[in-house]
Formats: sequence, C-alpha cells, structure tokens
Amino acid sequence: MKTTQLLNFAFDRWIAGDSASLVPLASALDGATVATTGSGGLDFAAMLRHAREVGGPALRRLSFHERARMLKALGLAIMARKDELYELNYQTGATRKDGWIDIEGGAGTLFSFSSKGRRELPDARVLLDGPLEPLGKTGTFVGQHIYTSLQGAAVHINAFNFPVWGMLEKLAPTILAGVPAIVKPASATAYLTEAAVRIMDEAEILPPGALQLIVGGVGDLFDHLTGQDVVSFTGSAHTAAKLRSHPVVMRESVKFVAEQDSLNASLLGPDAAPGTPEFDLFVREVVIEMTVKAGQKCTAIRRAMAPVEHLDAVEAAIRDKLASLKIGDPRDEASRMGALVSTAQRDDVRAKIGEMQAAGARVVAGDPDAEIGPDGGAFFAPVLLRADDPWGCEAIHDVEAFGPVSTVMPYRDLDDAIALANRGKGSLALSLFTHSPEAARDFVLGAAAFHGRMLVIDRDNHQESTGHGSPLPVLVHGGPGRAGGSEEMGGVRGVKHYMQRTAIQTSPAMIAAISGQYIPGGPKHVIEGSHPFRKHMRDLHVGDTLRTASRTVTLEDIEHFAHFTGDTFYAHMDEEAAKASPIFGGRVAHGYLILSFAAGLFVDPAPGPVLANTGLENLRFLTPLYPGDSMRVELTVRSKSLKSEETGVVRWAVEIFNQKNELVATYDLLTENLP
Amino acid sequence: MKTTQLLNFAFDRWIAGDSASLVPLASALDGATVATTGSGGLDFAAMLRHAREVGGPALRRLSFHERARMLKALGLAIMARKDELYELNYQTGATRKDGWIDIEGGAGTLFSFSSKGRRELPDARVLLDGPLEPLGKTGTFVGQHIYTSLQGAAVHINAFNFPVWGMLEKLAPTILAGVPAIVKPASATAYLTEAAVRIMDEAEILPPGALQLIVGGVGDLFDHLTGQDVVSFTGSAHTAAKLRSHPVVMRESVKFVAEQDSLNASLLGPDAAPGTPEFDLFVREVVIEMTVKAGQKCTAIRRAMAPVEHLDAVEAAIRDKLASLKIGDPRDEASRMGALVSTAQRDDVRAKIGEMQAAGARVVAGDPDAEIGPDGGAFFAPVLLRADDPWGCEAIHDVEAFGPVSTVMPYRDLDDAIALANRGKGSLALSLFTHSPEAARDFVLGAAAFHGRMLVIDRDNHQESTGHGSPLPVLVHGGPGRAGGSEEMGGVRGVKHYMQRTAIQTSPAMIAAISGQYIPGGPKHVIEGSHPFRKHMRDLHVGDTLRTASRTVTLEDIEHFAHFTGDTFYAHMDEEAAKASPIFGGRVAHGYLILSFAAGLFVDPAPGPVLANTGLENLRFLTPLYPGDSMRVELTVRSKSLKSEETGVVRWAVEIFNQKNELVATYDLLTENLP
Repeated sequence: MKTTQLLNFAFDRWIAGDSASLVPLASALDGATVATTGSGGLDFAAMLRHAREVGGPALRRLSFHERARMLKALGLAIMARKDELYELNYQTGATRKDGWIDIEGGAGTLFSFSSKGRRELPDARVLLDGPLEPLGKTGTFVGQHIYTSLQGAAVHINAFNFPVWGMLEKLAPTILAGVPAIVKPASATAYLTEAAVRIMDEAEILPPGALQLIVGGVGDLFDHLTGQDVVSFTGSAHTAAKLRSHPVVMRESVKFVAEQDSLNASLLGPDAAPGTPEFDLFVREVVIEMTVKAGQKCTAIRRAMAPVEHLDAVEAAIRDKLASLKIGDPRDEASRMGALVSTAQRDDVRAKIGEMQAAGARVVAGDPDAEIGPDGGAFFAPVLLRADDPWGCEAIHDVEAFGPVSTVMPYRDLDDAIALANRGKGSLALSLFTHSPEAARDFVLGAAAFHGRMLVIDRDNHQESTGHGSPLPVLVHGGPGRAGGSEEMGGVRGVKHYMQRTAIQTSPAMIAAISGQYIPGGPKHVIEGSHPFRKHMRDLHVGDTLRTASRTVTLEDIEHFAHFTGDTFYAHMDEEAAKASPIFGGRVAHGYLILSFAAGLFVDPAPGPVLANTGLENLRFLTPLYPGDSMRVELTVRSKSLKSEETGVVRWAVEIFNQKNELVATYDLLTENLP
Repeated sequence: MKTTQLLNFAFDRWIAGDSASLVPLASALDGATVATTGSGGLDFAAMLRHAREVGGPALRRLSFHERARMLKALGLAIMARKDELYELNYQTGATRKDGWIDIEGGAGTLFSFSSKGRRELPDARVLLDGPLEPLGKTGTFVGQHIYTSLQGAAVHINAFNFPVWGMLEKLAPTILAGVPAIVKPASATAYLTEAAVRIMDEAEILPPGALQLIVGGVGDLFDHLTGQDVVSFTGSAHTAAKLRSHPVVMRESVKFVAEQDSLNASLLGPDAAPGTPEFDLFVREVVIEMTVKAGQKCTAIRRAMAPVEHLDAVEAAIRDKLASLKIGDPRDEASRMGALVSTAQRDDVRAKIGEMQAAGARVVAGDPDAEIGPDGGAFFAPVLLRADDPWGCEAIHDVEAFGPVSTVMPYRDLDDAIALANRGKGSLALSLFTHSPEAARDFVLGAAAFHGRMLVIDRDNHQESTGHGSPLPVLVHGGPGRAGGSEEMGGVRGVKHYMQRTAIQTSPAMIAAISGQYIPGGPKHVIEGSHPFRKHMRDLHVGDTLRTASRTVTLEDIEHFAHFTGDTFYAHMDEEAAKASPIFGGRVAHGYLILSFAAGLFVDPAPGPVLANTGLENLRFLTPLYPGDSMRVELTVRSKSLKSEETGVVRWAVEIFNQKNELVATYDLLTENLP
C-alpha cells in the first residue's frame, strides 16, 4: 500500500512539501507508518501575505453574526464526517471516548462560539467596550473604547494530543474576530488535523485566505511576523521560550499566547475523610485524569494532595481502581485506555518518572519499566508515585511526566495545601473536593492568583460537573507563570485576543458614525408618520426616534397608582416626610408609575412586528417628577440584531424628559421583533 | 553647597546607595549638578521579598474601596506639597505648565482611580468578571470568572519625561489591585520622583512594603522575578526588548507591560481645507505637541499628514506659529518652551534629525545646529521637517526624534492616509481633524487596529478636547506593535493587569462563599420580623431575603392598568390577537404592571434607611403572567457598597414567581441607603 503524503493547504490549494522535507509518522499502535509529511518548498512569507491581503479583508467584511454562522456550519461539516476522523483517531493511540473529546469536543467548541457570537456580540464589525466616558462638562467630547479586528494573521502552533480540538479551540475565536489563521499541527498526529482541514475546505464555508495549514516545519515564517499578527502556541515551555524570544517577536511586539507546562493539582478537602462522597469523587477524578487520553493532557492531575491522615487511604483507593483498568488496543471497546502517542513519548515519560524517583518519590502503583502491548506500539500502564515529604521533593512540582502518571502527597493544613498548590508556579486547572464553603473560600482566595481554572466539587454538584480536565469554550483556558501566562477561549474574552482595543475620543455624533449605533447625544432622526412599532426590523434604522406627546402627572395619578399597586412609600404619599428627605424635598411620582406612563406614551397597541418587551437594562432615575410636572418620551433605535431568521432583538434607548427638558430617567428597552 | 544624594526607599526606610555607585545628575538649565544618585549595595532580592511578604498581604487585606481611599489621600498629599515639586521641576527643563501635566496630572490620576475604584469596583477583595455561565441543566454546577490580586510585586520602570505622573499612572492601578510596587525612575529626573515618594511616605498612608523606590540601577532584580510579578516599562524599544527577553522573564512568563517608541500621526481630514475651523485646529495641535514638554512626550505628533493640495498651507501655518514661540528659562513666565532634559538628549535629537534628512526629509523650519541658551544648558529650538515622498522616506516612519521635532507629509486620498498612518507600525495616539462623519468612520475603521488611542476633533468638540498628547486615566494608554503591544490605565481595565483572572466551576453556593455576594441559586437567609427596608446597611447581610405575600392579578387589574397608563398593547387587551401571538397565546399582564405590583408587595412605606430606588438593571421577563395567575417576590441583598460616609448603595436581586413557582421576571434593584 502506498503511504499517504500529507499536504499543506496554502493559497487556497493543497500543496505537497518537497520530498527532501518528508518524515514518516508512526502509528501509536504498532509503529507502522501512517503517513509522511513535510512543508519544504513552501513560501511562508507569501502565506502570511495571502492571509493578510486576501483572508483578512474577506473576513472583516463580514459581521460578527455572519462569522458566527460560518462557525456553526464548520461544526456541522465536521460532525457529518466524524467517522472518518474517528478512524484516524485510533492511530494516535486514543480510544473512541478520547476521540470524542477531540472530535466532537472540537465541533462543540465551534457551536459554542457560534452561539456566543450571535448572543453576545453585535451584528456589526466593531465591538464597543464599556460605557461612554464623559470627558467634558457639556457632553461634546466623550471617550468610547472599541475593538476592531487585527489586520494580520493568527499563527496557531498546536500540540499532538488534541489534533482536532486543539485546532478548533484556537480557530473559533480567531475567525469570529475576523482574523485569518495559519495552522501548524504537531507532526505526530498531523494526519488527523489534515483530515479535519480537508473536511472544512470541502464544505466551502470559509472565504479564500481565511485558513491555511502547514503540515511540517514553519521555516522562516517567524521572520515575517508583525505587530498585527498573533502567535498562539500550545506545547512545551522550552519551545515556547524559544519562539517568544524570537527577535522579530520581540522587535514587533507580536502578541504571543502560550499554553505550556502545568503541574495541575487536585486536593482532597480537610473535611473529606474516607467515607464521605467527596473522598470517593476525588479518587475517581484522579484516576480519570490519569487515564483519559493516557494522561496526555495539559490539564491532567499531576499532583494529588490529601490531608496527611488520609494519604494512605487515598493511595490505596487509587491503586485499587488502577488495578482493574483495562489497557489495550483502543479499537477494542473493552479498552479503557489506549497507547501513548509514540514510543519516544513513552521513553520521555519513563525518564521523567526517573527524575521524580531520584528526588525521593516512590512508585506505589504500576511499573514504569513494564513492556506491554505489541512491539512497536507505545502502550504504557499508569504509574502512581507518592512523596511523603512534598517540600523536600522539588521534582514532583517541576517535572511533568506527560502520560498516565500522578503523584500523591500529604498536606498538613489548608495553608500548607495552598502553598503546595501554588508551588506548581502557575497551572491551568486545579480541583478541590470539599463540602465546606469556608474551606472552598479560603483555598480559592489563597490560590486563585496561581491558577487559570479552579473547580470545587462536592456531593451536590458532581453530577453536573464537567470534570477537572475539560477546558470549556465559555471559560478561559490558560494559566499564569509556568502555564504560559496567557488565556484562550472564555467566550467573547477569547475573541478579544485577536482584536485591538482602541480608545476613541470625539463627539457622540462621530462615535455613532464609527460604531453604527445610536449614541446618547448623537444624531436622531425623528420619524414622522408611521409608528416605529409598525415597522419590520429591516425598515428600522439606527437613530430612528419616536417623540411622544406629553402627559401631566397629577397628585391624583400618584395616589391612585399607590393604592392600586400597594406601593405607598412615604416619598409618594406623605408630604411632610417627603419634604424631610434629602433626595426628594416633596412628594414625587413612583419610578414605576413613570415607566408605566412612558409605555403608555410610546406603545402602539395593534398587533405588528414588535412582538414583546422582553427586558430592560441600565435604568437610572435622574430627576424626581413632582405632581403637576409633565413627562414625554424619546424612543430611539440604539441597535438591532437578528436572533434567527424568524425573530430579532431591537434595543431602544428610552429617554424620559420633564417639561423643563431635564432627563427624568433613561434606560435601554429590549423588544423581540419580526425581521 | 553640598550636593544632595538621592536615597532609595527600601524595606520602609531611606537607604543610601554606596558611594561607588553614585552618578551626578545635571540640571537641564545649565548643567550644574542637581544631585547624585545610586543604588549600589541594595539587596534587590530582599526588596522583592519585602514587597511580596509584607506589602502584598497588607494590601490584599484591604477592600478595593479602602485602597481607593488611600489613592485619594495620596493625591491630596501631593497637592498639599506641590510647590516643592514645581521647584524641582524647573531643573528638568520644564515650564510650570509642563510641570502641571506631570505633578497635578499625576495627582489627578490618583483621584480618577480613586473615584473609579469606589464607583465601579465592589467594596470587596474579589472582582467578578461577567455573568454566571450555566454549565449543567439543573443549575447545580456553574462557571464564574473572578479576578484576584497577583501575589507578587509590580516593578515599574519609568521614563525621564514625567517623573511624577509616570510613577503615579502606574502606581494607582497597582495599589488599587492590591499589589505592592517597586519604582525605578529614569536617572535624569530621579530627584523629582524621589521628592514625590518622600511626600507620600511622610503622609503615612500606605501600609509597610506597599511602595519601594530604587534611584539607581536595578542590579540583579530581574533574576528574582516570578510569574506573579509584573514589569511595567516605559522607555525605548531597545531597552524594552532587552528586558522582556531576560531569561527569567521568559522562563517564568512574567507579565510585561511596555510603552515604548511611537511615531504618532495627526491627520488633516480631506474636507479640512484652509479656512475651515478644522485646518486651524490641526495646525494649533501640531505646534502644541511639538512644544509642550519640549516635544519629549511618547504621545507627541511626529508625523503630520495633509492632503497633498494643502501641504504648503499647512507648512506655512506651522512655521508661522513656531516663529513667534518664545523659548527660554522655564522659570521665566514668558517662556512657552524650556529646555530638553540634557545635552545628551539634545545630541540624540540632532542625530535623529540627521537620519531623517539623509533619507530625504528637508528642514523647513528651525535650525538643528543652532546653539541657544546658556552654556551647559540643553535648549533646542523646534524643527519642522517636510517629506514630499512619504513612501520613499522610510526614516520619517521609523526614527523618533524625542524632542520638538515633527515632519509634515502629503497624502493622496483616505486610503493612502490610512496606509501612511499604519506605516508607523503601531502607535499610542493618533488624531484626525475632520468635520465629516463618513471620513471619520472610514479612517477609524481602517486604522484603529494600529493605534491605542484616536481622536477625531472638529469645530463642535474642540473646546472640550483634552488634546492629542494627553493620556487620560479613564482611557487605555498604550498601543500595538512598535508602541509595545500593551495597555495601561483605562480605569478598571488597568487594574486588571495586576490581577489574575480565574474561571471558577462549582455550585452557586460555593461561588457565593468565595465572592461574598448573593448568587442566584445560592443560599438565602429569609428574614423574619423586621422588614429589610427598616435596616441600616450595616445590619443588612448579603443573602438576606424578604419573601412577600402573594397577589392575584386579575383581568380587571390588567384592563384598569391599561386604561390608567394608556398602554393598550393588544397582548393585554385583545384576547383574539393575543392568542395569535407566538409568544403569549392569550392576554397577559403588562410587564410594567408586574414591576409595579412587585414594588407594592416588597416596599415598606414608612421613612427609613432606604432613601430611594435609584435604578434597575438586567430586567428579563421570563414567563408571561396570565389573568388569574398570582405573583410573589423574593427580594435578596446581592451586594452593598458605601458611596460616602453618609450614603451607600444596596443592590437587591429581585425574583418574581408565579403560583407554580416559575420565574416570571428577574432584575437587580438599586437603592440608596443610609449606612
């Protein structure tokens, strides 16, 4: 059988690396060659130009919502052909369940970003950040932070362990931000990434230049980076340091996101004695994290900590569970754990265990030297280490054996546990098993600065727990210090890493023009004739304003409203007490009366494209309304966005004025509308 | 007269550098020695430990509001003794007006952060970031991002040009974040920084270890940094690259914030012909930016761009204004511009002008070789260059002459202008003078990714404009690429740079314990007896809940409310039309009726510590309420914070349930309360 040669995807076509650059990729199961791969001969500078000059402009022409819809389509394309990917997945040593995390987890990440993009980002190309900042007394000059798409390329350098998810968790926020990507997978499992890129290419969803793939080395690519590019790297701290200190990265202040080594900890709470649900949950989680993906996860539990008096029980319970674990060919459904990715990886894991043993840790379960599985395969049984003097055994906090390996260790009290957890010098994920809110609070406040993600698991929440080792698209993934000092994902947070924040200082009218939104103080277009509630969204324009008639609010109205609703607060009902109030100085109308009368002034009663008032935001009462005052409303289209093909949301700026044109109240009103 | 030796402030005492380390600091006015300075003999590792072990814990024990109050007190201390600082300021070559930016601008930055801290941060030590993320179907497991204080030290390395403001714009967000600082000013003007630190020390406001000062080199300090420390640097790109590629910074992923070189541009809009107000405003701004602080500002306009047909007029107008500029001893009130900071700086400016001339730029105003002012002084008259072929003259986009120097150049059309602006490879500040919203929009969207701050100035907003060159505490200061790829200030945004974001996954009850806030789904303490509106803030506890009685909403109520308010929307009034609605399926109560009845249920009428309902946020209507349904309210203290000694704000979570215990609506209610 002819060996497949993986191809690069550059300039929107599939290109073979030259033959001198080819290296064979071995199956984790038996060492047979799965494919050859290489990128020799590619013009990397031209790939960056193609991304910047073709992909970037095409993506930036689309709105956030249009990009979000592409992400959903990409996810559906992956799901439709997932079986092709599962088949290749086995060659990486992974079980079907491991593959589920990678393949369906990857598609799920696309779906999550698609959903967040449509719900939390505007149907626009500019993202406003924070409220207007007044910079002068009369309101002619204001500040507004905005995010716009970076005009460079994102270079994604991925690890071998999640060839699909690892690509997609970086790609989703990048595309949503309007930035083209160049993906470089780790060689060992590049065949799976290449297959996923083929599926996405054949689905014809992304515009030209939005996605390119390098299946070999990146050559001189880094020499051509600029300050508009982003490098997002997952891998070893050693490689990260080499790349981020590249002279061009330094000179151009290239944004560099790194997920690297992490000695993640899990902690049995001081209250979680043997026999408690939390004890069993802890033991189960440690074993899961040791064995899922054969422990080849950046987020796996490397350090399992327990109160000194429970350490023997913890050790015994983990050992028991490991003893019954079935390791074998991942294509066999009975296998709970498959192989490491390669024999080189297995050798590295053995060497790292040796370092920890040399520093004083003892092997208490498994045999690092045992040879299991077929010749040429990379099978390796889990190894549990124990360090009774965790402060005297540096290696357990510094050496990451990237396989089914964990170390149990004791702590004396919560302060000691916090110090041990933080001794990892920064991690991606930490879990704490406790039913005590006080212990959770003290631990989290003491340790959070060192960890990017923390779980507190107990009997009440474990059934819905997503697990220690699973980064989620809606939460940030990353950690300080040793873990790389960066963040990925986290919903819209992750999108912003591929955008530039700029403070704009100008008039409200100019902000309105730049943002495509109505800005208080900016221009309004007063609608004459047809009521805005009679218009479909497509016929409503940002800045369209309804000016209502005026209505006088009488003392009778206030008393009537008070008795009708039951709200007889003294400020509305008791002239003498209201006069004594530092705020009112006399009886005033209820805030809710003002809101209700406002609706009475601006609502158009007949059925129409406005289906319902679904919410209200940022209401502030600014000037009291006294009996005899009148009120009128200006209702302005602030922004609009489609939820689906059937409905959308219009955000209206509501301003209520009194007869002196003083602002009585302002708020945003949300309505559900027909498109 | 004995020369003053500047002292370091370490371990909460003033310490002299050893004599071998001392260097003289020369007056900009005449070259006389103002002081000697050095830091030889300091134990830099111990300074970091002192910050981490003494300063950090003391600051972290305080809430954001307590830290904010310290910032205000520091600002008042500076203002009370500002004359001492103004006196030293002249020795740097700066005029009184220049000093105002540095000294009172520095104090103003403290005031701004103090105000933002009290208004926008909670009276707590943990900052919640974004809403709860549901992670399971039943709500037992949720995600919440939090920010906690980094547990290391902030090392602030400042530039010579703003010895007071430069320190305080970094110190304010650092202290507010709960992180101790070690300040290292540039030597040339370190006497002014030292004097300001003395004022702050003598005011006895900060806890021990919160602030230290190094008035000489930083020795081996960088060798002892960790991933919990932050380096915030302002200065040259060359020095920044050296520091940020330090092996320890790389190895530990030390956060590194850099403000460095920036070839800021200002643009005369295509519409702004001679004779328009925008033309005059542009010329004025270029001259101001060339001459304030003798052009020694990171944000000064280095590149002034105009439509090719107006370039001659621009050149002539700038030359005219420069010709009438009075340069001289800054102590003389008639002097509009003083001296550069040193003769070395003057030599550097001359050399940089030479590079631009060699690349093809012509001097069109001023004489770089002219010697002015007294011997030993660093006076230098402004120089205007002109480059008629801006794409053929690389140096004007790459070489920063850090003095009263600017280059005028033509652009062909708006696309050319955008490309030229972006050719600076990333800048701190850009201004555009136009009265055209379309030009502003196209320019900003095309260029924002390259610039940290952009101003659009016209006839309508110029009177309140804060100016091209003034970073503001409420706006981010920084820029991508050449400018360093970082951000400072920006209100609370700048505080977050000194904190770690962590994603917490657990039950609402645990989030409540960790955050010290009520979290929906978390524990409530139902109050029996006294109504919460009868309690002072100090007696209200987070989680305290009022459960109201229930009230039936009748069709008569709905009709009555409709006629009373005028809100006769069909969903409330027309059974047939409401039945046809995809949302309601029958007549429903008005949202505002529900809100009004809710207030009727939870309000306690008599005067008491709750002064007023001031606002409402995040209202969502979740389930329609039909005639005959009943409603009841749970009102829970979500958080509370003092505005002053006299009043505070309580944020209440309001949940309205129907008779089936379905959530009808939720919102946050804000009240003004007595403490």
